[in-house]
Parts: sequence; structure tokens; C-alpha cells
Amino acid sequence: MEAGEGVSSATPTEEMNGAGNLMDFLDEPFPDVSTYEDFHTIDWLREKSRDTDRHRKITSKSKESIWELIKSLLDAWSGWVVMLLIGLLSGTLAGVIDLAVDWMTDLKEGVCLSAFWYSHEQCCWTSNETTFDDRDKCPQWQKWAELMTGHTEGAGAYVLNYFLYILWALLFSFLAVSLVRVFAPYACGSGIPEIKTILSGFIIRGYLGKWTLLIKPVTLVLAVSSGLSLGKEGPLVHVACCCGNLFCSLFSKYSKNEAKRREVNCLSSALIFVLQVSYYFPLKTLWRSFFAALVAAFTLRSINPFGNSRLVLFYVEYHTPWYMAELVPFILLGVFGGLWGTLFIRANIAWCRRRKTTQLGKYPVLEVIAVTGITALLAYPNPYTRRSTSELISELFNDCGALESSQLCDYINNPNMSRPVDDIPDRPAGPGVYNALWQLALALIFKIVITIFTFGMKIPSGLFIPSMAVGAIAGRIVGIAVEQIAYHHHDWIIFKNWCRPGADCVTPGLYAMVGAAACLGGVTRMTVSLVVIMFELTGGLEYIVPLMAAAVTSKWVADAFGKEGIYESHIQLNGYPYLDVRDEFTHRTLATDVMRPRRNDPPLAVLTQDSTTVEDVETLIKDTDYNGFPVVVSRESERLIGFVQRRDLTLAIKNARQKQDGVVSSSVVYFTEDAPQLPASNPQPLKLRRILNLSPFTVTDHTPMETVVDIFRKLGLRQCLVTRSGRLLGIITKKDVLRHMAQMMNQDPESIMFN
Amino acid sequence: MEAGEGVSSATPTEEMNGAGNLMDFLDEPFPDVSTYEDFHTIDWLREKSRDTDRHRKITSKSKESIWELIKSLLDAWSGWVVMLLIGLLSGTLAGVIDLAVDWMTDLKEGVCLSAFWYSHEQCCWTSNETTFDDRDKCPQWQKWAELMTGHTEGAGAYVLNYFLYILWALLFSFLAVSLVRVFAPYACGSGIPEIKTILSGFIIRGYLGKWTLLIKPVTLVLAVSSGLSLGKEGPLVHVACCCGNLFCSLFSKYSKNEAKRREVNCLSSALIFVLQVSYYFPLKTLWRSFFAALVAAFTLRSINPFGNSRLVLFYVEYHTPWYMAELVPFILLGVFGGLWGTLFIRANIAWCRRRKTTQLGKYPVLEVIAVTGITALLAYPNPYTRRSTSELISELFNDCGALESSQLCDYINNPNMSRPVDDIPDRPAGPGVYNALWQLALALIFKIVITIFTFGMKIPSGLFIPSMAVGAIAGRIVGIAVEQIAYHHHDWIIFKNWCRPGADCVTPGLYAMVGAAACLGGVTRMTVSLVVIMFELTGGLEYIVPLMAAAVTSKWVADAFGKEGIYESHIQLNGYPYLDVRDEFTHRTLATDVMRPRRNDPPLAVLTQDSTTVEDVETLIKDTDYNGFPVVVSRESERLIGFVQRRDLTLAIKNARQKQDGVVSSSVVYFTEDAPQLPASNPQPLKLRRILNLSPFTVTDHTPMETVVDIFRKLGLRQCLVTRSGRLLGIITKKDVLRHMAQMMNQDPESIMFN
Repeated sequence: MEAGEGVSSATPTEEMNGAGNLMDFLDEPFPDVSTYEDFHTIDWLREKSRDTDRHRKITSKSKESIWELIKSLLDAWSGWVVMLLIGLLSGTLAGVIDLAVDWMTDLKEGVCLSAFWYSHEQCCWTSNETTFDDRDKCPQWQKWAELMTGHTEGAGAYVLNYFLYILWALLFSFLAVSLVRVFAPYACGSGIPEIKTILSGFIIRGYLGKWTLLIKPVTLVLAVSSGLSLGKEGPLVHVACCCGNLFCSLFSKYSKNEAKRREVNCLSSALIFVLQVSYYFPLKTLWRSFFAALVAAFTLRSINPFGNSRLVLFYVEYHTPWYMAELVPFILLGVFGGLWGTLFIRANIAWCRRRKTTQLGKYPVLEVIAVTGITALLAYPNPYTRRSTSELISELFNDCGALESSQLCDYINNPNMSRPVDDIPDRPAGPGVYNALWQLALALIFKIVITIFTFGMKIPSGLFIPSMAVGAIAGRIVGIAVEQIAYHHHDWIIFKNWCRPGADCVTPGLYAMVGAAACLGGVTRMTVSLVVIMFELTGGLEYIVPLMAAAVTSKWVADAFGKEGIYESHIQLNGYPYLDVRDEFTHRTLATDVMRPRRNDPPLAVLTQDSTTVEDVETLIKDTDYNGFPVVVSRESERLIGFVQRRDLTLAIKNARQKQDGVVSSSVVYFTEDAPQLPASNPQPLKLRRILNLSPFTVTDHTPMETVVDIFRKLGLRQCLVTRSGRLLGIITKKDVLRHMAQMMNQDPESIMFN
Repeated sequence: MEAGEGVSSATPTEEMNGAGNLMDFLDEPFPDVSTYEDFHTIDWLREKSRDTDRHRKITSKSKESIWELIKSLLDAWSGWVVMLLIGLLSGTLAGVIDLAVDWMTDLKEGVCLSAFWYSHEQCCWTSNETTFDDRDKCPQWQKWAELMTGHTEGAGAYVLNYFLYILWALLFSFLAVSLVRVFAPYACGSGIPEIKTILSGFIIRGYLGKWTLLIKPVTLVLAVSSGLSLGKEGPLVHVACCCGNLFCSLFSKYSKNEAKRREVNCLSSALIFVLQVSYYFPLKTLWRSFFAALVAAFTLRSINPFGNSRLVLFYVEYHTPWYMAELVPFILLGVFGGLWGTLFIRANIAWCRRRKTTQLGKYPVLEVIAVTGITALLAYPNPYTRRSTSELISELFNDCGALESSQLCDYINNPNMSRPVDDIPDRPAGPGVYNALWQLALALIFKIVITIFTFGMKIPSGLFIPSMAVGAIAGRIVGIAVEQIAYHHHDWIIFKNWCRPGADCVTPGLYAMVGAAACLGGVTRMTVSLVVIMFELTGGLEYIVPLMAAAVTSKWVADAFGKEGIYESHIQLNGYPYLDVRDEFTHRTLATDVMRPRRNDPPLAVLTQDSTTVEDVETLIKDTDYNGFPVVVSRESERLIGFVQRRDLTLAIKNARQKQDGVVSSSVVYFTEDAPQLPASNPQPLKLRRILNLSPFTVTDHTPMETVVDIFRKLGLRQCLVTRSGRLLGIITKKDVLRHMAQMMNQDPESIMFN
């Protein structure tokens, strides 16, 4: 008995601190015992049950004193506090980024004399020339050539402006790529593939760190302002996740639990993605993310970057309903969206693979500079590509009002009709429209090609805006075409009921919106969220049927060529261990086909509950790199009693060797409830039951892999043991599952990056 | 060897049909083998893997011939076809119901002389009196008193109208309750608690049957028209689910698989609920339900019941933005919504419990008649309760335009100002508004009380419209109050920046909308879906922040009093076996505390793999009512090898006894791969390995119940076996889990209705 009590696992110092600390000690035996290494996957069930324990402890303590009660209330509210902070910070960042992008985009062309920090619009907004035509031409705003030489017209001024435009673009993109390379390599790309992977339970240290949070917004502004074909929505999600991570570290509830951290982490502003990724998260989290979105919307509204006190980016109002017959062009736009999605994904992945495998990948700065140069060179001559992409989309979405000065609205006026303002009946297109059509067609080709090469470079780059731009251009072209056909052929049967002469019947702006939705859907394959986003961006709810028709068609078409969206393709290209909820596993393999050890492998590395020595364990740890070891009753019976983590085992032995007298290499390790009484001559046994997971997940060897994949997916397991009639046969890890799935899809199983 | 071959499990007839049929036979050994009994729960994993098998078989067959290829394509498309049909039928039904309700609601007051099948609005719409004031008073539309006596004014006419109004209401509700009682008892209520339960995997035969589909729409029209305080949104979801069920039975893919059936079944029109219930369903399903919604929207648009070619029920357009300071009343409305939700749920559940347990429940027809009588009696004198509730909400949501003739818009005109149309600056309220305020306050109290007694009666009754009405009335009252305070106290600090004299600053209609959202949230506790619905109903996207602020507050307040929404409360009241995704189980119990057998129970009923006789099995089946039995190696080792369903076992033995020679009571049942060769004197063994589930789900006895609950919830299990170091200890069924959860929440565990 005395010997048994002597081997208490608590060290003397800790024993003196009394019962309260002893409890702490039992729950978290050693420092760092429950953290994970970089590029490892987390165990959801374990993290969850740790949080429940923590919660239970706080609740029971809260009855002891007022102070503990306050602490428990603070703990309960910390989720909301974190969300409030995230909302405030990410809303502020989004607003500041918008303002900065506006200013810097315009800086490429000219400067505001009255206040150099004004963008073109702000500069001329405050001027007295308030008629619509002249709003863009106010004396305070001067192009660079005008400022430097005094000339506004002529080839010389044009060339100078052109040259400075390219120079600014190169400067911005050089700064962006350099900052990313030097300070925060993780700040590049859209971040969405990585965030999806992190949310699914993978650890990438530093990906959501402070440096990323600092550098990404700055470089994002630079990258967008440089005129490259990229958007800021995806990177903004990444930035919001970084905010989440930052604020998580303020509260021990979140900083110490990888599952809880993920819960808050990225959901903040990524409501859209929540809808797809919310598998492991309880519904409470959704409410919180709503709350954060509310705060962010608030903050954004206070900053008011769009200058119209609306929360939506592209606000449109159309005055005509749509007609059934228009569904045909809408569906054609859907087909176009699907084809573009397929083309883009294939071409972009091929290019990114080439970048990874060839010399090209070694010169990221040069690549960015080159692409920026080409983009600026080709973009400037065409008015539709010179301006910022979001302005372009906004113009394409807009309906032609009577006061519209845009080239796109250059219709031939019929002098016989005097219509009220704001209502344009159908009219023949003027030369401006035909001119615009050509320019739009060129812009479409340019955007399609350049976006393929832009996405994936080492700068922050989103994909929403370029995809939508491609769709909006195509849509507007189709829209104008349909409109003109309808005007010139009123007598055709299909137009007869629909377009009476003199009445407004086709809204080309709606076609642009539909096209944008189709292309966005084709590229990202978002489901529910797609339509939601389109609502958010446009404020149109009347047009749900056209949008849905196009989105569904686009998804069908794109899915026919391959199930994966751009983010999944990039996840696969990078070999992230992401278990997609959408893949359906339908092969007939069984757990026994996937588990290790395979037929000719050495037997599974196991520990026995009462016959392994400390030395044996140390040898096993040294010789293998498994994340954990099953513990069995004995090597003969092979009956499973639990699973022990490699990390816990290493720490426990190290700790015991340092602090616990009598634990030597020949000490026996006991995982049983009571260590037997040993004669004093024997070395002290080491009792490790408290680090043993007594409820490891098991399946039988006959379980279909379909079920196993489901279990891994839904429960977020890290590993699963395989048994047959109570005997331990092998182990299946998440990596094994992913490799098996890759193999079944005829992909290289070794591409999975994973530990 | 010969003996071994002699005991082939196929019967002679089936053997003659050759290999193809033998394969079928192996997959589905006996007819009905995989169906479930009424009020049982389904096994998701099993259903899923059956569907995968079926799919695999079709795919491999499709290479054999063109015909099989066509069949496989048809099979692949059947999901979309079903959705198309559901969309068409439920859209048509929704449209027809709307038209019928409009007509019958107006029928209570009068009739259209030009065409008796016209509603009041349709009747006067076609008349020549097109000014807004007179639109409601056209000669073609005559109240009953006018038609019968020729008098339009006076006490006599009023009393006659009043009397006929009550009479019609009684007639409608009597018809409704009688039809429900006689033809389709399942057609009563909103159906949402039951659908949530069915979707979670419970079988209630007939709940989604043809009779329900026939009767529910008819009785719904009658119930709504009778003027009772109920809505049609919930029952419409039920009707759409019935459509789904009907079309499912056309395709064997769906009719033979309970999981696939659920997949299509109810998702059709219940996109809203999908977002909450989509746990077990793959994302593909969501796309399909989008498609169905598209078709339904289409059909509805063609029928155009709202007469404005808009898809939304309450279309509003406000002309003023909202101000930060207004968040205070919005949040107060949220608090009101939460309190109303709590009050309603508690009072309604208490009343329904009383109905269930006392004599009251025996006279459903009388109850409906009484409530209808009281409702009609009290509703008629007040113009805000006399009209249909959706009209009321629509008026409350509306902003006061210059042409509005409503009493609510009776502001005192300031003759000094001549403003353009459609823009009402702030003005003092006239006597009409004060009058309306009193009537609204009375209507509010009336609605609150009567709704509590109405929901749960034996007629189809939804809750959305009454909840929204309560909130809209309260909101409009608050809105008018704020508006008048702002008008009379322009000089107060809070109004100074916000309300300049003569400018429009408060929109009472927005308050009504916010109040409606808050009350809907308080009662149903919907999360994401709530705001989405409000969008759908109102078309307003600008006001997401007020709506969200009120909805979040309402949820907080209501959750403080109890976590459950009205549907969950009704599920619990009825004892349905519904495992709520939202409940968090945080108790520290282990699997060993919940599993059966308990400490003093007789040992677990198990079968052994090779030592049980047919007689033993039959005795076991007769003596117990378990759904299945674990199979172990032997009673001594207790090592688990599989699980066999009671139903399969019964059928297999019955079949074998009838068709297989030599199987007698003393035959040994073998679950092993090969039956041993027995001397000819012994009775023929019965090999049953093919009905043995070789991958039963197991957990160890140390697994925390938190994890077990998670597993049941996410994998949709029916039962789970408990082992310790490979030995079978006991079993946990879904019922055990639900009972344990009820016990932990201090509820009566025996209330769970379940098999």
C-alpha cells in the first residue's frame, strides 16, 4: 500500500497547493499537453469534450463566490464580446480598404488639387458643377499630363498619362509583392482554400497570425489599386478570420481550445461560408456570426465608403419586369457561366501547377511585375478595362436612365415621343452603343485571359469581382443584342406579346446581373450562398427566378465537366487534407482494405496495459512517427482498451523521469486502474491511465468505407481503430482516408500533405 | 460437401431464375425485409448504404444494353423530375389556396354581383371607379344586408351583416373540422413539429399520405377564411411535403428507401427548414430544393394570386433611411417579441396539455365552433381584426403615401406646404390616427389571447401570420408614438440631428416590420431562416440591421426564459423522438450509465454465432420486443461479431421453415462464414450470415454521453452497442438516449413515444 501511494503522479509542489489545483492538474497533466503540432489535424470530439469539462468546472466553481460567479458570466459572454470586437475591427478594415482603393485607383490617372487625399468622385462631388454630364470633369481634378504640362488633349498628353498609369501600377504591385514576400508569405492568394482547410480541423500556424492581419489589408489595397484583374472579397474573409484569431487569443476559452477557436475564428464575417462549412459547429455559432455581421455592417455604414448610405456594393433598381421568353437567353448565360467556370478552373490549375513545378515559381516578384505591366498596357486604351472592375460591374448592371451619360446608353432618341424622365422605351442603338459593344467584346477576351494568369500569384487576390466582371460583360452584350433584335423585329411571334412598340421590354442591366451570377457560380460552385451573395451585392430580390435559372444551369454545365470548384481544386493542388462534404464516396471498399498495417507490413505498433517498460515506450516513440498508439490488454488477446497520444506519452515520461523518484528505464508502464503491489526491489511503476483515452473510436473490419468516410467527416475524427470480434486489427487515420479517396479517384495518393 | 451445398439459402423457384435474380435475392433476401414499422425510427447509415448498393448495381448494369443505360439515366434524373413535379403541384396549390382564401374571406361580408366568384378587390378592380378612395366602394360589390334588404346604413344592416359574418365563419370552421375528423386526422395543426420529427428519421405512416394532401388544402382554405387567428404558411409546408411523398412513390429509387424518400420529401418547398434540418442530407439535395422552389415560384407567378406580378407577399418600399437612435425602439420591440414568444409558448403548451389530459380534448368540433364564434363575435366590430390578417399586416407595413386613404394615414395637413406626391413630411397625427391607435391596441390584446387558444386545435393552423400580426400591431403603435414624439419635440437633443422640421424622419411601417420579425423570432426561434423569410415576405433588404437587431434581441430575451421554440415544445408535448441539433448535452454521464441492461436487469439478450437453435431464436423473439439482437462469438467470451434485426430474423426463419427442407426447431443457426459439416443425422443447419450486420456501431463504456449523443445525432443511428476491451456489455438505443436527455433535464423520461 505504501509503495502504491508513494507513486502519486502529482509532484510535491503541486500537492501542496491543495485540492483545487490538484483538479486542474488532473485535467491538464502537463503544460502543452493538448496542443497540436503544425500541419497536424485536430480531434474534434476530444476538443469538444475538453470544452465541456472546462465549462462544467466553471459552472460548479461559480457557486463558491461572487468573484467566481462574475468570472463565469464573463466566460459565458466572451463569445459575444469576441464577435463584437471582430465586427468592429473587420468592419473598420473593410471601410478603410474601400476608401484607400478608391483613392489609389484614381491616383493612377490623376490627382485632386483641392485635397490630394480625395478620390476622383469625392473631388468632383464637392465641386459646384453638379450637372451629371460634367460631374466627372471638374477643374479640381487634374490628370497627370494636365498637371505636369498643362495640356489636356493631344497625343503627347495621352502617352504621358498612359506611361504614368503603367508606372503607378508597377509601383503598387511591386510594393504589394515585396511586402508579402518579406513580412507575411501567408498573406498571398485569396486565402479561402486554406481557411476551408483550417476550419475542417487542420493546423497551419501563422496563417491567421498578426503579421498576416497587418500586411494583408495593405497589400490588398496595393494589389487592387494596381489594376490587376483581382477582387478583394476573398482576401477580406481571410482578414476577418485573422481578426477573429487575434481576439480569440485574448480569452483562454478560445485560445486553449482549437475547436472553440475555429468556431469563432472564421465565422465572423464569413457567413456565406458558414452555410457550407458549419458541419462541426453548433447553431449557436451561427447566431454569433450574425451578430458580428451586424456590428461589421454598422461600422461599415458609419464609414460609408460607397457614399450612398447603402450597405450593398452594386445597388440596382430596374423598372421593368422580366418575361418568360427571356429565360432562354438567361439559360444561355448560365451555359456560358458553366463553360467559363470549367475553362478557368482547368487553365488556372494547369498554370499554377506549372508555376509549382518549373523555374517560373522561383521568380514571383518578376511574375507579378510582368503581369501587372501587361495588364496595365492592355487595359488603358479600353475605357471598360481602364477603370476599376467594380465600377465596370456597377455600370454594366445599371439600367439606362434618361440622365445617364454612359456610352452604353447612347440610344437614338425618337423625337416624336416625349416620355417622362427615368423611363427609356425601346429605341434603336446609336453609334455609341455599337462602339461600346466592340470595346466590351475586347474587354471580355482580355479579362478571361488575364484572370487565368493573375489568380494564384503571390499577392492577395480574390476571384469574385473578376468572375462577376466576365459574366457581367457577356450578359450586357447578350442583353443589348436581345434588345436590338426585339426592337427591329417587333413582328416576330416571340416578341409580339412581350414588346409592344414604344414600350420598354428588355433590361440589358438585368442580363449583366444574371451573367455575373452564372459566372460566379461556375467558378466557385457555391450553392445556397451564391444567390444570397448576389442579393447582398445588388439588392434585387425581384429577379430571383432569372438568377436561379442561370445559377442552376451554370452549375449543371460546370459539374458535367468536373465536380470541383476553384477552391477545392486549389486545396487539391496544394494537397491540403480537406474532407469535402460534397464528395460522395460510392466505392465498395471496406475498412479492412484501407487500414494499416497492410498485408505485408510489420504488425501494428501497440502498447500493452501492464507489460511495457519505459524503455520499450521510448524505443517505440523513437522508431516510429505515429501520432498515437493503441493500448491492448496483452499481445496475445489483442483486446483494445484505449488509445494514447504520442505527445502526451512523451511529455508524461519526460516529466516522470525528471520529477518522480524511482522511475527508470526498466519501470513498467501501467495503463490499468490499479498498479499491482510490487516488491521494493523492483523499480517504481509509472501509472499513465490519466493520459489514456478510454473511448477510442472503433469500427469493425467489415464496415464499408462509405460509412467510415461519413464518420470521419461528420465527427471530425483524427483516427479510428479497426477491430474484428473485439480484437484490434489496425488503424485508419484521416490521411489514410484521404489517400484512399484520392486513389479511388485515380489521383496520386502521395499528393496529400499531412501528418 | 454435399450437405453444405444442399442448404443453399435460395429457394428452388428462385434458383431457376438464374444469376440476375439470385443477385437481387441476395441483396434483398425477403420481401419487406428492409421496411420499418409504424412509429419506428430509421437507420440512416443502413439506408444510405442500401442506396449506394442500388446505385452501383444500376451503374454496372447500364453497360450491358442501351435499355439499361436509358433506365440508369432515368434513374439519375428522377430526382429532378420529382422536384419539377413537386414544384408544379405545390406552386399550383399555393396559388389556388390564395385565390380561394381571398374569395371566401370576402364572402363573409358580401358578394360580387357581376361575378360571384370574384373577391372584393377583383370585383372592384374591374369597375370603372378608379380613384383610390372609391375603389373599395363599387356598386358591383354588395354587402349581404344591402343585397337582402337594400339598406346600406343603419343599425339593422349592421346587425344583419354582423350576424351573417358570424354564421359564415361558423359554417366554414365546422366544415373544416368535420372534414379533418372524418377524412384525414393528420391534416390538423401546422404539421411542422411532425415534419421535423419525420425528417429526423421517424416513421409516421399516413402523415404525408394522399388523404392529407387532398383534405389539408381544402380545410386550410376553410379555416383561414373562417377568420380564425391562424396562418397558412406552416400547413403549406406540410402540403408540399405530401406532394413530395406522392411523387416519391412513383420512383422506386425513392419509394423503397426511407432515407432517400426523406431527402426529397419535404425539402421541396421547405427551403427554410432545410437550412435547419439538413444534417443528414448531402448538399445536392439543397440544389434540388432550389430547383423545386424555382418551379413553384414560376407556377405561382403564372397564377399571380397577389395581382402584382411580384413573388413576395408584403411588398414594401420605404423612402427614408433609418437612424441610429431608432435602434432603441427597435431593440425594445425585440424585447417585446421575446416576451411574447415566451408567453405564447408557455400559455399555448399549458392549454394544449390541458386539452390532452382533460375532458376538453373529447369535443374538438365543439371547441373549434366555440373559438370561431368568439373570434367572429369580437373581431367584427374592430376594422383591424375584421379583415384578413395578411391584409392587416400589409396595411401596417405600408408607408403612408399621399394617396393613402387608410385611417392610419390621417395626418393633419399643413396647408403652408405643397410637397410632391408620395412624400409625406412629418406631421401631427389627426383624429383618425388616434382612433386607429385605440383600435390597434384592442386588436393587439385580442390577437394575443385568441392565438393562444387557436393554435393546436384540430384544424390546419399556421403560426407565422398571427405571430407577425401581433408584432406588426405592436410595432406600428410604437412607430406612431415615436413619430409623434419626434414631431412635437424637435428640440430634444436626440431628435435634433435626425428630424429637421418638415422632413420625413420616422417610418412607422418599418417599426411594424421590425416588430413582426421580433415576434416571429420569439415564437419560432428560427435562426438564419428568420431574416431570410422576412426578406421573402417584404422585399426589403435595406433594413437588415434593424431586423437583425430586433431578431437577436428577441432571441436573447426568449432564450433567457427557455431554449425551446414553439415547434420543439409541441414535439416534446407529443413525445416525438426528436433529437434536437440545438440542444447541447453537457452532463458528465458515461455510456455505461445509460446502456441497458441496468445493474439489476436480466442479462442482455444475445445470440451466439454457432450454438443457438431455431427454437431458441423463436423463444427469444417471442419473449422480447427488442428491434434486434447482438450476435457474439460465445456466451463466455462475449466478443461481438454483429447485429441482427428482429424483423429480418423473423422473416428468415419463417421463410426457411416454409421453403427449406430439413430446417426444424432443433436446427442450429449459424452466423459464421462457413457452417461446419454435420453428420446427416443432425438437422440441417440454418445459415443466416447474410442478414447479419457485420459493422454494428460500438462505443466503449467509458465514452462520455456527450460524444454518444453527438454520434446519434450526426450519424442518425438507431442503436449502438457498448463494449469494454472487446467484450459486449450492453446496448444504447435512440430511445435510451432521448430518455436519458429528458431525465437530465428533469423531465419525465416516460413521455418519449417511441419504438
